[in-house]
Amino acid sequence: MASLITLLTDFGAADSYVAEVKGVILTALPEATLVDITHQVPPGDVRAGQYLFARTWRRFPAGTVHLVVVDPGVGTPRRALAAEAMGHLFVAPDNGLLSSLPETAEFVSLPVTPSAAPTFHARDVFAPAAARLAMGVSLDDLGDPVTDARRTPLPEPRMDGVALLGEVIYVDRFGTLVSNIPADDVDPGVRIVVEGNDVGALKRTFGDVEPGQLVAYAGSVGEVEVAVRGGSAARLLGVGVGAEVRA
Amino acid sequence: MASLITLLTDFGAADSYVAEVKGVILTALPEATLVDITHQVPPGDVRAGQYLFARTWRRFPAGTVHLVVVDPGVGTPRRALAAEAMGHLFVAPDNGLLSSLPETAEFVSLPVTPSAAPTFHARDVFAPAAARLAMGVSLDDLGDPVTDARRTPLPEPRMDGVALLGEVIYVDRFGTLVSNIPADDVDPGVRIVVEGNDVGALKRTFGDVEPGQLVAYAGSVGEVEVAVRGGSAARLLGVGVGAEVRA
Amino acid sequence: MASLITLLTDFGAADSYVAEVKGVILTALPEATLVDITHQVPPGDVRAGQYLFARTWRRFPAGTVHLVVVDPGVGTPRRALAAEAMGHLFVAPDNGLLSSLPETAEFVSLPVTPSAAPTFHARDVFAPAAARLAMGVSLDDLGDPVTDARRTPLPEPRMDGVALLGEVIYVDRFGTLVSNIPADDVDPGVRIVVEGNDVGALKRTFGDVEPGQLVAYAGSVGEVEVAVRGGSAARLLGVGVGAEVRA
Repeated sequence: MASLITLLTDFGAADSYVAEVKGVILTALPEATLVDITHQVPPGDVRAGQYLFARTWRRFPAGTVHLVVVDPGVGTPRRALAAEAMGHLFVAPDNGLLSSLPETAEFVSLPVTPSAAPTFHARDVFAPAAARLAMGVSLDDLGDPVTDARRTPLPEPRMDGVALLGEVIYVDRFGTLVSNIPADDVDPGVRIVVEGNDVGALKRTFGDVEPGQLVAYAGSVGEVEVAVRGGSAARLLGVGVGAEVRA
Repeated sequence: MASLITLLTDFGAADSYVAEVKGVILTALPEATLVDITHQVPPGDVRAGQYLFARTWRRFPAGTVHLVVVDPGVGTPRRALAAEAMGHLFVAPDNGLLSSLPETAEFVSLPVTPSAAPTFHARDVFAPAAARLAMGVSLDDLGDPVTDARRTPLPEPRMDGVALLGEVIYVDRFGTLVSNIPADDVDPGVRIVVEGNDVGALKRTFGDVEPGQLVAYAGSVGEVEVAVRGGSAARLLGVGVGAEVRA
Repeated sequence: MASLITLLTDFGAADSYVAEVKGVILTALPEATLVDITHQVPPGDVRAGQYLFARTWRRFPAGTVHLVVVDPGVGTPRRALAAEAMGHLFVAPDNGLLSSLPETAEFVSLPVTPSAAPTFHARDVFAPAAARLAMGVSLDDLGDPVTDARRTPLPEPRMDGVALLGEVIYVDRFGTLVSNIPADDVDPGVRIVVEGNDVGALKRTFGDVEPGQLVAYAGSVGEVEVAVRGGSAARLLGVGVGAEVRA
């Protein structure tokens, strides 16, 4: 059976950190298949890491082990976690990165040995734990149960009179603004407004407007997104994460 | 047998899009071996994607499946294609990305189900098709034949008096200018001129000039290239794709 | 047995060069497992490549083949090497990239066929050699022994009165300054000074100072590092590789 392990970090692609993590895993489990989710999370941006992980992990098959490390508190007493949910397995610092796991998820606290580098738990704590999970070691054998893993849910939209009031929760490489408003909750014909800029009613895709024009549509995870065809909505509107979105 | 699938997109490395595509493939075919060609094609730049793909796909073994998605027309009526040529298999939007396939290539049109996100066919249309091809499903079982797949050949050099007149078709990370003039067509001793700048006759490699100097040579796919030893020809000459090259 | 091959280059992620190398390897050895160390070494920066490789290769299991190519002298008479040390195998240009190999390492000189592109030995010389090593071909069958492979050791700290005088040998994506001073050689309580800026005595980790503050600690390979919690020490201090570090 393939042992699939995904990796999401803020380590970037220029240094050796990701490869050191992979070397540790492959030394323990040479037949592991490693898949990068991304290593370009802005340094220390737990919320961005959490968002990217939330939309990705369910796409992988049950049995996959996910190593998720955006860890500004590395080396402090914050706990190191392993978890299991829906047949997937996880290792991550206890800082909200795993907030997208269902309520039924089980967590344990990983021991941190004195030999672990206090600034590189990904290599010395999380990678060995991920390899052991991929080898079939049970969650309970990795650490003591934890019932209060940190949950930092992404903001939810609320009603403001007859309007839905949400916000931009992610901006992608194309400058697309991803909101937290489920497109299914938007009544037909309602216009989308971003920080006072009327973007029009929901359309299907970029091609439904002229090049250079703004377009709102139901994004690929179901939330309202705002883009510019062939351009960047973030740049055109001068907004980013946290910007107000009305529907 | 290894199931090899390459991926070339303009999705970048910072978002979760590439990983979502990989998750879909690995859920269908856990033993697939995935190889990134690049995900750094400038957003929507079909021509750059086409060039990079043209010089790469034949390097992989027969039987490889190539997922090629630079798709500014995603969600519009542009067709989604699967193809077969020289024992390789391909999925891509019908926008010229596959222009490097030989005339003998066979194409089919992939159905787009209503549940496919209109802005993410890579995940919802092309990834499942790539997995099926890698599993051995035949091209004909994936869709109806297409005989007019879009071909947008890269520009070819022409004669201008006794000179060859070509252009820069790609600029790489080192600032090297890749032209469309086959080095074998350049007579010995003929000087290469880029937008009026005499770069000298063809040499063998960077080391044949002093650091900081311009050098023209036969590049690794056989075309004339112009570089600066230890520097960037694009920056030194202030030129890019489309710049005139004479030989 | 898994055939593990790592790749470290300065080719970047935007062009097709890395994929062309991988295609050559996978055509020769379809079951190879390829792991990127990094391709973001600054163009031609042998010393940065050497540093990153030094701290990474031992993390992989014995039997791993490492392709290491930062090669400003490509196509010149500089030798192309294959090597073996501690059960690991290596291919690289003879320019000091492999200086971290132990004295007991064995080297051979790879033949360069006339058909090899003089600007792309990674694809035409090193990739085929790496594949052959991964297939079990012995070092001696690849080329003639070399006893004077180029060694360019990284600078070592020296005593200056009672102080240790070292320098910054690498700056990572977080702006962390990695010095060449072994933290174990620093007496307790001694203050770390970077280009005249007192950074304080060694602490354990980022969390031991307030956000925005400088912190020195024993890094994950044992050397003194200087960082800013949630920021960049390189930017705050305005220093880079070669900056003086006193301890």
